[in-house]
Amino acid sequence: MANNIAKKVSWSGEGTPLLNGAEESRYSGQPSGGNMFHIGRMSTVDLEEEAITAEEQDPVRHRPSEIPHNENLLSLKYESLDYDNSENQLFLDEERRMSHMSFRCLEISRWFICGLIGILTGLIACFIDVVVEKLAGLKYDVVKENIEKFTEDGGLSVSLILWVVLNSAFVMFGAIIVAFIEPIAAGSGIPQIKCYLNGVKVPRVVRLKTLLVKVCGVICSVAGGLAVGKEGPMIHSGAVVAAGVSQGRSTSLKRDLKIFEYFRRDTEKRDFVSAGAAAGVSAAFGAPVGGVLFSLEEGASFWNQMLTWRIFFASMISTFTLNFFMSCYKGKLGELSNPGLINFGGFTLESVQYSIYEIPLFIIMGAIGGLLGALFNVLNYWLTIFRIRYVHRRCLQVMEAMLVAAVSATVSFTMIYFSTDCQPLKDSSQEYSLQLFCADGEYNAMATAFFNTPEKSVRSLFHSPPGTYNVQTLGLFTLTYFFLACWTYGLAVSAGVFIPSLLIGAAWGRLFGILLSLVFPSKITIWTDPGKYALMGAAAQLGGIVRMTLSLTVILVEATGNVTYGLPIMLVLMTAKIVGDYFIEGLYDVHIKLQSVPFLHWEAPATSHWLTAREVMSSPVTCFRRVEKVGTIVDVLSAMSTNHNGFPVIMQAGTDDEPGKLCGLILRSQLIVLLKHKVFVERAHSQLGRRRLRLKDFRDAYPRFPPIQSIHVSQDERECMMDLTEFMNPTPYTVLQETSLPRVFKLFRALGLRHLVVIDEGNTVMGLVTRKDLARYHLGKHGLLEEMDLAHP
Amino acid sequence: MANNIAKKVSWSGEGTPLLNGAEESRYSGQPSGGNMFHIGRMSTVDLEEEAITAEEQDPVRHRPSEIPHNENLLSLKYESLDYDNSENQLFLDEERRMSHMSFRCLEISRWFICGLIGILTGLIACFIDVVVEKLAGLKYDVVKENIEKFTEDGGLSVSLILWVVLNSAFVMFGAIIVAFIEPIAAGSGIPQIKCYLNGVKVPRVVRLKTLLVKVCGVICSVAGGLAVGKEGPMIHSGAVVAAGVSQGRSTSLKRDLKIFEYFRRDTEKRDFVSAGAAAGVSAAFGAPVGGVLFSLEEGASFWNQMLTWRIFFASMISTFTLNFFMSCYKGKLGELSNPGLINFGGFTLESVQYSIYEIPLFIIMGAIGGLLGALFNVLNYWLTIFRIRYVHRRCLQVMEAMLVAAVSATVSFTMIYFSTDCQPLKDSSQEYSLQLFCADGEYNAMATAFFNTPEKSVRSLFHSPPGTYNVQTLGLFTLTYFFLACWTYGLAVSAGVFIPSLLIGAAWGRLFGILLSLVFPSKITIWTDPGKYALMGAAAQLGGIVRMTLSLTVILVEATGNVTYGLPIMLVLMTAKIVGDYFIEGLYDVHIKLQSVPFLHWEAPATSHWLTAREVMSSPVTCFRRVEKVGTIVDVLSAMSTNHNGFPVIMQAGTDDEPGKLCGLILRSQLIVLLKHKVFVERAHSQLGRRRLRLKDFRDAYPRFPPIQSIHVSQDERECMMDLTEFMNPTPYTVLQETSLPRVFKLFRALGLRHLVVIDEGNTVMGLVTRKDLARYHLGKHGLLEEMDLAHP
Repeated sequence: MANNIAKKVSWSGEGTPLLNGAEESRYSGQPSGGNMFHIGRMSTVDLEEEAITAEEQDPVRHRPSEIPHNENLLSLKYESLDYDNSENQLFLDEERRMSHMSFRCLEISRWFICGLIGILTGLIACFIDVVVEKLAGLKYDVVKENIEKFTEDGGLSVSLILWVVLNSAFVMFGAIIVAFIEPIAAGSGIPQIKCYLNGVKVPRVVRLKTLLVKVCGVICSVAGGLAVGKEGPMIHSGAVVAAGVSQGRSTSLKRDLKIFEYFRRDTEKRDFVSAGAAAGVSAAFGAPVGGVLFSLEEGASFWNQMLTWRIFFASMISTFTLNFFMSCYKGKLGELSNPGLINFGGFTLESVQYSIYEIPLFIIMGAIGGLLGALFNVLNYWLTIFRIRYVHRRCLQVMEAMLVAAVSATVSFTMIYFSTDCQPLKDSSQEYSLQLFCADGEYNAMATAFFNTPEKSVRSLFHSPPGTYNVQTLGLFTLTYFFLACWTYGLAVSAGVFIPSLLIGAAWGRLFGILLSLVFPSKITIWTDPGKYALMGAAAQLGGIVRMTLSLTVILVEATGNVTYGLPIMLVLMTAKIVGDYFIEGLYDVHIKLQSVPFLHWEAPATSHWLTAREVMSSPVTCFRRVEKVGTIVDVLSAMSTNHNGFPVIMQAGTDDEPGKLCGLILRSQLIVLLKHKVFVERAHSQLGRRRLRLKDFRDAYPRFPPIQSIHVSQDERECMMDLTEFMNPTPYTVLQETSLPRVFKLFRALGLRHLVVIDEGNTVMGLVTRKDLARYHLGKHGLLEEMDLAHP
Repeated sequence: MANNIAKKVSWSGEGTPLLNGAEESRYSGQPSGGNMFHIGRMSTVDLEEEAITAEEQDPVRHRPSEIPHNENLLSLKYESLDYDNSENQLFLDEERRMSHMSFRCLEISRWFICGLIGILTGLIACFIDVVVEKLAGLKYDVVKENIEKFTEDGGLSVSLILWVVLNSAFVMFGAIIVAFIEPIAAGSGIPQIKCYLNGVKVPRVVRLKTLLVKVCGVICSVAGGLAVGKEGPMIHSGAVVAAGVSQGRSTSLKRDLKIFEYFRRDTEKRDFVSAGAAAGVSAAFGAPVGGVLFSLEEGASFWNQMLTWRIFFASMISTFTLNFFMSCYKGKLGELSNPGLINFGGFTLESVQYSIYEIPLFIIMGAIGGLLGALFNVLNYWLTIFRIRYVHRRCLQVMEAMLVAAVSATVSFTMIYFSTDCQPLKDSSQEYSLQLFCADGEYNAMATAFFNTPEKSVRSLFHSPPGTYNVQTLGLFTLTYFFLACWTYGLAVSAGVFIPSLLIGAAWGRLFGILLSLVFPSKITIWTDPGKYALMGAAAQLGGIVRMTLSLTVILVEATGNVTYGLPIMLVLMTAKIVGDYFIEGLYDVHIKLQSVPFLHWEAPATSHWLTAREVMSSPVTCFRRVEKVGTIVDVLSAMSTNHNGFPVIMQAGTDDEPGKLCGLILRSQLIVLLKHKVFVERAHSQLGRRRLRLKDFRDAYPRFPPIQSIHVSQDERECMMDLTEFMNPTPYTVLQETSLPRVFKLFRALGLRHLVVIDEGNTVMGLVTRKDLARYHLGKHGLLEEMDLAHP
């Protein structure tokens, strides 16, 4: 690695040494030199091409000259959202025209939209739940019947094949739609939503097509018996619903309802998407407060009370809708007892007691969860790298998914087959209890864990009376399910990791509880209930994998329906996070990093006070003059090498090469709309009656602004001038060159900026700070200092 | 009112009309023209003087010339916190010297401090709880014995007198320490903490003396039988603990432990105070998550994940400590069953069912709660105005408190005396059940509600089986307790409003439930449990008074120990807020407004896009040159008329009256330290070996910087020069004059600024925006627009 750095620095031949040093340092802190250059599969249309590029640019073999190209490739993919309103003349005029009443109406529409988001998200959750239940029930019934038929004959291999084929068929369908129609619908969608809420525009992540593929995909993967959950995708679904509903139109369906036009900008849309994500969590886990906290923990930077209440409202409505329709579906109209997609079942008041002596045990469990979670993440990290390198063809992806499905089924079957854990059938509450080779009146305990949807297994582990599972069963189950789940996450199927994590944790947690009562039989009264330890284990494992604390605590508390366990769950999650963070980041962060997303953390690295805006900024910056030649604009926008999205506007300077004083900031998207409508100074004179460009024109083009190539500008028009005064943001946020990185970072992060203009004392534009300039200082904490020392002799 | 405005505008004779118009508009939007000029009693040492001033300046009679004076009085009282670090050379040098390891150590100390805050807050809660229980138990035992002795003799008046005297004695002591020693310890302290977290430096609010008075005061007022709770003050106590512990020293005790010196600045202190407030909520209600949300809902603007986790940790530790020590105290070591100061008792799983048909009922209850809450707030608002006008002498305040105590006791006694609601004594669980005139084996139901600490009454209303209370008892109780609680809030005693609100709500809620079962006897199976309605009523009433939603939902859910009621509680709170907001603000906001605190809301008023920084800013600004004469600095700092706290530093301009280019910002506190240490250019030359000023010198002076008057500067020294370069913040945040108010507001609020420099395109200082410039546009929403129209012809 050190060798690598030295090489990089030696390349820098031009410009000031300082700047280049800083430029290079972005390649430094990577845990592995390789993954920076791997292009994620998540959001790649032309995946094969890019994957090849990625392979070519393996850092061991790459040529220095290709780094900028690669970087551009990345930057083309991930733009920032404009969370800061462009307060240009048009915007201000509109705002000023609006009365107090109109603002109140807007506020009411916001609440209305949030309600709508909640209802739709709840309905989607309902739909997924019902369909999965039906399909899984059907599948298990068929297989069970088959097994029972063949158990006596001894020809179980037929059952196995039937099971494998059924599972693979479901998964194949799910994988095909994901891989061929919408690759971004793969996985849980939580990393993508995290990025979106962080302010990164992930392409196609909130489109209708993504939603459809996601919903079908998740049904297929859960019904296909993969080690996945249907909860994570709900968060993505909620976000898509929110992005769609709040815009009052669908670009995919080419329908415009002409409503909610005011909300057609990134600022408002992002707010609604956080409400949608919260509604998704709420529907998935029956946890409205947890949903709000999830949105805040993962996404928000500036906490706004009104927004939080709206998010809360959306969450509330979402749970309510789900509850209401599920109660209708189950024929108990109006009994709102079923809180979310996953229902951990109520812990009775007797079982929720814990004593202070158990707290160290819980902390130990947290540590175990942290370790296992880190192991899970490391394995999955390697696996993902492997997949990026070798499994990048779509058909390969589908085949891998089918392979996993087949292996899952086979392993489960084998485990059940060889299991000798027979338990007396106490009541008929075990829905898919298999007798198999057990005596009459008994059932196979391993089958309860494997031959079931994961949620039901979790519930069984939490609530089954002591003695339901024996030690070997749980140990084997944990082991196999751990590797299955790890293999499964990252496949080209829509699936969540919450439930498998909970299941693994519940299994070893229950095992822990049983072992405790074996080791200390005298204290049997205290740890009489292994379900308590199953819950703690589930929390520890999930915490160890995803590393959320606050929101996860609330989600688990809400899902179990009892706050008494709140404190131990918190302790467990904290411990799991601390232990896990020692080894590797959370699973979602690992995947975000693998996608090379310019993700902004909460704060600048502590030791970055050395750096100032001068070193961080991109420079030189392409600026436009207040009245600029159309040809220049078109040329700049068309140039592939300078794919900038924001351009400082400067006063007419005396000479061309002298940088002028800043007087505004204009976005690529705005320029494109201007070019499209040919808002040229010359035209305005010749054509006096022409209508002025309004904010509506920008909103109509949002969010899919046409590329510059699609706009035809004739040679004559190239000579025209364009007056940007009215359209630029005349008061962009600025910082001085000497501002320290943490200060720049704070401003950028707190206001959700996209471009921050760096000026000198004379208000001359010196550079531009964008998300990528800041995000690169987060790639590795330990490497940063060395690089900076190198850059600052 | 219109007449009033016209008068005001006509006064403005100097300066640009625009500016003056804007200046005047700060007096416009007040709901009542009067309350702006009333100086709060909350934080007034020299209360009598100020109150007289307030009366003199009643707007009906005041002379225009006195307004500026009054305003200065306010601004002297409430300064902003410096939530933005002054990143001067010293600061940057220190940060750059620190290694990655030191930052990690700092982080660990932060966690350690949060843990300490949690432990101490928990212990304080413990102490209050135990002492109140002992004292109240003693009192009730004495009175009960007395009553029982005299019931047969018929001489109950002796009992009454005994009760009245006991209560008044307790309350007298509580009121005396509050009124004479630390007036800011009055009330619940939540408005003050809200202001502090908002960024307002409320004088003496986080001192040790305040804490001591608060704790003693709350014990006295609860033991004195006032209609108050001991929960609100816990939040204040937690905040004081946090402010104390995090600084590693006590200015009051003059002890400096020489630790945590890094945290001696507003940025860090405010973060710890939010943790302390959360720990307080957590200890009071056993609601760690609720505590975190409270801190965020009331205080935070920029949401930082690490900070939130620390807050969470403090909350967790606080509940845990309380639980642990309470379990020790109760002899059930290690059984962590008692969650907080208030324990609503667990709702059994059978009783937590609700059907969808009950939701409209809950919403109706929310609306009732909103109405009653608004009534409460309006009455309390009038009462507070009355108090400010006429009850401003300390002895009067003590006497009023004693009067309330006496009346409370008398009313309770009368109610119990005349009550004929005898209920059979089912078990001995009623702790202070009075037989009075009931037959043997029966007890007086009214006495259960009145002759008890409020928490126990709440628990009894929630959990007593149907039939425990009859309709008249509840109705009468609600009525009397409502007015008693309303009268009590705002007295010069330490007391919270949470529990009385819950009690009122629980009473009418239970009444509602009983009436329902009377009106619809056929559906008796659904609303069999009036305890459910008592809970909803309690939520509605509390929500109607304080208007919190998110945090309150979580607090109530955590306090009841069951999440099933989460959704209805949310609905109830939302409804109560919407209905209540239609009439008047929340109780805390009413009181904050009555104190004329420059409180910044979450967003600028929607219709304020008309205004730009030019109109909002204070101008002209007193600036210093980079190298400034000591005499000038001393004169500016000493001038009473310009009591500024931040001064832009400008480059040496050619002529004196031409405004120079901005090159930094320096604070009054920094200048005072510089003057104290005589950091003059001339001295540096003459005295080469002199040690340089370090950041430690500033930290040692924090937070009580000496006034300028205490610093002696000789006539010779006045001629010296001071070089501010090293000490000023060279990169203050700036905005252009044309920036719209919402944009300025967003920057200011999101970053927690204290001073925002307004510049023109040439980087010349044009003005300064401070909290007060922004807060005045929030005083009244409806008045704002007219004023602005007036100001912008």
